Amino acid sequence: MRTGIATVCLSGTLEEKLRAAAKAGFGGVEIFETDLVTSPLSPERVRALAADLGLGLDLYQPFRDFDSVPEELYRANLRRAEAKFRLMGRLGMDTVLVCSNVATASIDDDALRAEQLHGLAELAGDHGVKVAYEALAWGTYVNDYEHAVKIVADADHPNLGTCLDTFHILSRGWDTEPIEKIPGEKIFFVQVADAPKLSLDVLSWSRHYRVFPGEGQFDLPKFLGHVARAGYNGPVSLEVFNDTFRQADVARTAVDAMRSLIWLEERTARHLAAEASGPGADAPSPAELARASRAYAMPLTTLPQVAPPTGINFAEVISADGAPRTAELERLLAQLGFASRGEHRTKPVSLWTLGDARIVLNRQQARGLEPAISALGFDVEDGVAAAARAVQLRAVPVPRPSQANEEILQAVNAPDGTEVFLCEDTRWIAEFGEDQARTPAAAGGTEDGEWSPSSAGAPPAGSGAARIDHINLAQPWQHFDEAVLFYSSVLALTPEASQDVSSPSGLVRSQVMQTARPEDEAGRRDVRLALNLAPWIQSDSVKGARTDTFQEHVAIEVDDLVAHARACRGRGLPFLPIPENYYEDLDARYGLEPGFLATLRELDLLYDRDAQGAFLHFYTASVGSVFFEVVQRLGGYDGFGAPNAPVRHAVQHAARHGG
Amino acid sequence: MRTGIATVCLSGTLEEKLRAAAKAGFGGVEIFETDLVTSPLSPERVRALAADLGLGLDLYQPFRDFDSVPEELYRANLRRAEAKFRLMGRLGMDTVLVCSNVATASIDDDALRAEQLHGLAELAGDHGVKVAYEALAWGTYVNDYEHAVKIVADADHPNLGTCLDTFHILSRGWDTEPIEKIPGEKIFFVQVADAPKLSLDVLSWSRHYRVFPGEGQFDLPKFLGHVARAGYNGPVSLEVFNDTFRQADVARTAVDAMRSLIWLEERTARHLAAEASGPGADAPSPAELARASRAYAMPLTTLPQVAPPTGINFAEVISADGAPRTAELERLLAQLGFASRGEHRTKPVSLWTLGDARIVLNRQQARGLEPAISALGFDVEDGVAAAARAVQLRAVPVPRPSQANEEILQAVNAPDGTEVFLCEDTRWIAEFGEDQARTPAAAGGTEDGEWSPSSAGAPPAGSGAARIDHINLAQPWQHFDEAVLFYSSVLALTPEASQDVSSPSGLVRSQVMQTARPEDEAGRRDVRLALNLAPWIQSDSVKGARTDTFQEHVAIEVDDLVAHARACRGRGLPFLPIPENYYEDLDARYGLEPGFLATLRELDLLYDRDAQGAFLHFYTASVGSVFFEVVQRLGGYDGFGAPNAPVRHAVQHAARHGG
Repeated sequence: MRTGIATVCLSGTLEEKLRAAAKAGFGGVEIFETDLVTSPLSPERVRALAADLGLGLDLYQPFRDFDSVPEELYRANLRRAEAKFRLMGRLGMDTVLVCSNVATASIDDDALRAEQLHGLAELAGDHGVKVAYEALAWGTYVNDYEHAVKIVADADHPNLGTCLDTFHILSRGWDTEPIEKIPGEKIFFVQVADAPKLSLDVLSWSRHYRVFPGEGQFDLPKFLGHVARAGYNGPVSLEVFNDTFRQADVARTAVDAMRSLIWLEERTARHLAAEASGPGADAPSPAELARASRAYAMPLTTLPQVAPPTGINFAEVISADGAPRTAELERLLAQLGFASRGEHRTKPVSLWTLGDARIVLNRQQARGLEPAISALGFDVEDGVAAAARAVQLRAVPVPRPSQANEEILQAVNAPDGTEVFLCEDTRWIAEFGEDQARTPAAAGGTEDGEWSPSSAGAPPAGSGAARIDHINLAQPWQHFDEAVLFYSSVLALTPEASQDVSSPSGLVRSQVMQTARPEDEAGRRDVRLALNLAPWIQSDSVKGARTDTFQEHVAIEVDDLVAHARACRGRGLPFLPIPENYYEDLDARYGLEPGFLATLRELDLLYDRDAQGAFLHFYTASVGSVFFEVVQRLGGYDGFGAPNAPVRHAVQHAARHGG
Repeated sequence: MRTGIATVCLSGTLEEKLRAAAKAGFGGVEIFETDLVTSPLSPERVRALAADLGLGLDLYQPFRDFDSVPEELYRANLRRAEAKFRLMGRLGMDTVLVCSNVATASIDDDALRAEQLHGLAELAGDHGVKVAYEALAWGTYVNDYEHAVKIVADADHPNLGTCLDTFHILSRGWDTEPIEKIPGEKIFFVQVADAPKLSLDVLSWSRHYRVFPGEGQFDLPKFLGHVARAGYNGPVSLEVFNDTFRQADVARTAVDAMRSLIWLEERTARHLAAEASGPGADAPSPAELARASRAYAMPLTTLPQVAPPTGINFAEVISADGAPRTAELERLLAQLGFASRGEHRTKPVSLWTLGDARIVLNRQQARGLEPAISALGFDVEDGVAAAARAVQLRAVPVPRPSQANEEILQAVNAPDGTEVFLCEDTRWIAEFGEDQARTPAAAGGTEDGEWSPSSAGAPPAGSGAARIDHINLAQPWQHFDEAVLFYSSVLALTPEASQDVSSPSGLVRSQVMQTARPEDEAGRRDVRLALNLAPWIQSDSVKGARTDTFQEHVAIEVDDLVAHARACRGRGLPFLPIPENYYEDLDARYGLEPGFLATLRELDLLYDRDAQGAFLHFYTASVGSVFFEVVQRLGGYDGFGAPNAPVRHAVQHAARHGG
């Protein structure tokens, strides 16, 4: 599939956009007229630059407000068009997008439109240009792609075809089935954009909220399946107007964009393979997929197939060696019941475990930065295949200088810099020496001297059934959609509907990405990841150097939360203090049994309920931007205690501001 | 009028919100339940704090999903309510907001609703609580305020009344006239919010896009007029959910909020006075206004009335004394044709004039900051009255240490820190001594040594008819709505529809605020101000310390732009270079006369056209974040050359990034 992107999707100057598109691997670009008009590069220079970069100049766009006008204006429009056709000659471009008229259309007559477009195509032919006529969703008279196709057929000129744009088609809810009946050679261009389902006027929706495929809610694989069946084999090009992308780093946006097309290409092949196998078929086999990818004029590249991860292998927190924050983290882990499993053979990295929950504490952070979650390990069946898939999806591999005798781990960078390890087992644990177990004392001692590992009759550290329940990562707002696409395309996690949670410094958008719920009684999901889009998190800042609403955490699931909380309290764990008002409100809402409510109150526990069960949890104080949560799921509770999130945010806010 | 604000409008903790509301002068607050639940303050502490601050606790809200439910749920809801009534007793609060059911309503029966609300009111009465029942715009069965009023009437209990919320009423387009027929004593509470007209689903619109009165498009004075006529005399309280306000500085938002209510109060009095004078009446006289403000149970405080300004008296640019940037600015002014009118008697400030355009160059900027527009003078009839009005609208006066014999000027701070001077004349010019005229050489010489004041036969500096045409100020995004309200309420400028302009670093929202267009042929407006909401401008940063998209400028109108541009070129002025592609596009669009086009090209001039006339303009290079524009309006052209803005942004972007 030939990939393309409109320059309007990217920030920066025309030259910056072309370079970023080429570097991300796009086959071609659409030149958005304003980008050319505002550029100091002559058309000849643009042509030469694109050639140097190996980038096709596939579409000049848009030419507006041409059709459905009186004769005099039609003549003026032809003159205007001819100037652009000459310009396209200098650019070496052969296809122009003409959108249905929205501003000057005054005559609603298909015969006249066909005649005027025929005249335009005739003139275009003289300049070696092809005209792709597109129905805008808000076109005055032509706003339905089938209508545009009919006019193109009536005009009947070899230099006139249509352009299909998913936004204009899917935002209006038009049936996409008839696409298959369009002669493939009459589809001159295909533009794809995704979008969240909004009930906003279609123009504002289009101008501000388009996203890349896989980041919204349109069924684009189905659309592109129709296009493939129609026999189209031209560029599939992104045209995404989005306020955020326009501001974000251009190179990063281009990679995100490219990933979205690779994802779409694969999903389209899978969609076609599934349809070929008939209704109710399971996931297509590699052979079926390969067949589907070659079945049409437009070849569809596919990727190594991976199953969703089956667990969180470990979480890594980074902190500076010898820093007081590092000692604080070690103390916190010990107070939580984690046991030190010793130091890595060759690196200043220690391993801490509690049951099956593994926390790696990496002390290689630069001084002056705050502790942060720096890596996550996911359990996968085939690490090499998973990494190969990730790399084909333009994820950047983590460079790993490995000593002899060390496990070779596959890892790629997530968009926010978190390292994602694709682990087949836990053999890497052997690289940590138990004989070198670190204790908080060894790490610089406690600050208040109160804690000792054997205090209060707590059970021995590291014992008890426990696992990582979920990870909560804070995301910079510019790259939120990118993160959603990354975790769904690379790791096969499923995004749920996002939720807004209030906090003293603004609304926090929470996006859960998780594996499917098994159908057994308990219904434990294997992997749960929550991405938080917090106000004020700045762009491309280094992890650990972020503002105060940047807080992320690891949540540990235990079997008996109340007992565990008591043991933690016995070890002096600093709990996040929960206001009394919360318990009064909880009581008003649920009428809890007084003894149970007293226990919640005593231990600073939070409580939630859903249709399937209940949730008990507590938070620790933060160390820098990292904290921990301990949870217990009762019955089939499937959430994250979202109604309690405002309490957490408010108490953390007060703690940071000394309130 | 008793003023109020819901704690949900403000950022921070409950205590921070209460303190900010009190400091801004609000009479009372609505306690939003989440703010209390997440607070470490006990209800008794909240009560005592509010009493200390002189702040009424006017409404506890919201109590949700009470009515239209089966018996068992009704009983549970009564228990839930009783817990809240007890809590309100501890808070010393007597009114609770009950919204129409959206989540659990299953029985659509007005008689049942009246019965259930009667039961709730009876229970409330036992606790000394009054219930204000409100129709949410998206209530399952009750979403129309008249419906809610009817149910309240049917329930017929002294402790049950209604709450009117402008958002829920005006977003649905309900007729507001019937408000006058509600018995005043049955209106227990009034909540006001404004909103931009959006065709968005009403829930998202409500949750994210409400703004303070005067910052949106609702006709709130008309609404409040009905409320006054109904005989209501309770709090008029802001309930504004807005993503931006939730993130902005709490003290500043509280002041903005207070200003909006003062504005609304005055506008309501004017609306009532105008209605009393009958249709077609002019602006009400002070006596009519005073009468209207006292005509109803709810007294309406009014403000000194001011006419819109009649001109821009001067613009002040601030820069550091002795800094290279300052020399650059002086050279730029001289090259533009400005003449130095000398140094201020007592301050390191110089005056530059070109015809009637006056630029004050203040050299008191801290070192290390970039030059910025620091003050604007507006021509007003009565400076003392205008300043008094501004101060009543919570604008902060500019402290002005004045020497003997200096003009006393009235000035207040705009929200972004720009000083706004209210000038009756230009007698302040006498404080500048022509004998001390500064020349760029005196200010440190030119950088390239090319410029000399007498070069190229340019006309003598400072000569020719000229005036300030408009000022373009960049605004931090958190305070954009606030700036609009400030300039409309304090200066009586009228906001036009805002426009989005593309730039290499994102869309720039441009908001024009101006005086009315005179009906004469030329149609020159007295004052034009353009506020630019640029991406990436950070919050409350100091002027001159902002990021690179923060660019603002002063535009000078001249009579013969081409001649002026030639003279400027003769003096070596660095023009913003306009790409050749722009002129080709211009030609394609307008088919301009070749000689004229050649002149535009030669002089880096830009061109635009509207239905009334045409616009010629050019820009200078930037010095820090400041640049200048020179314009000529041909015929009745009334715009700002917006189609050319992307060119300017792109060239400035490239200049900043060395592209």
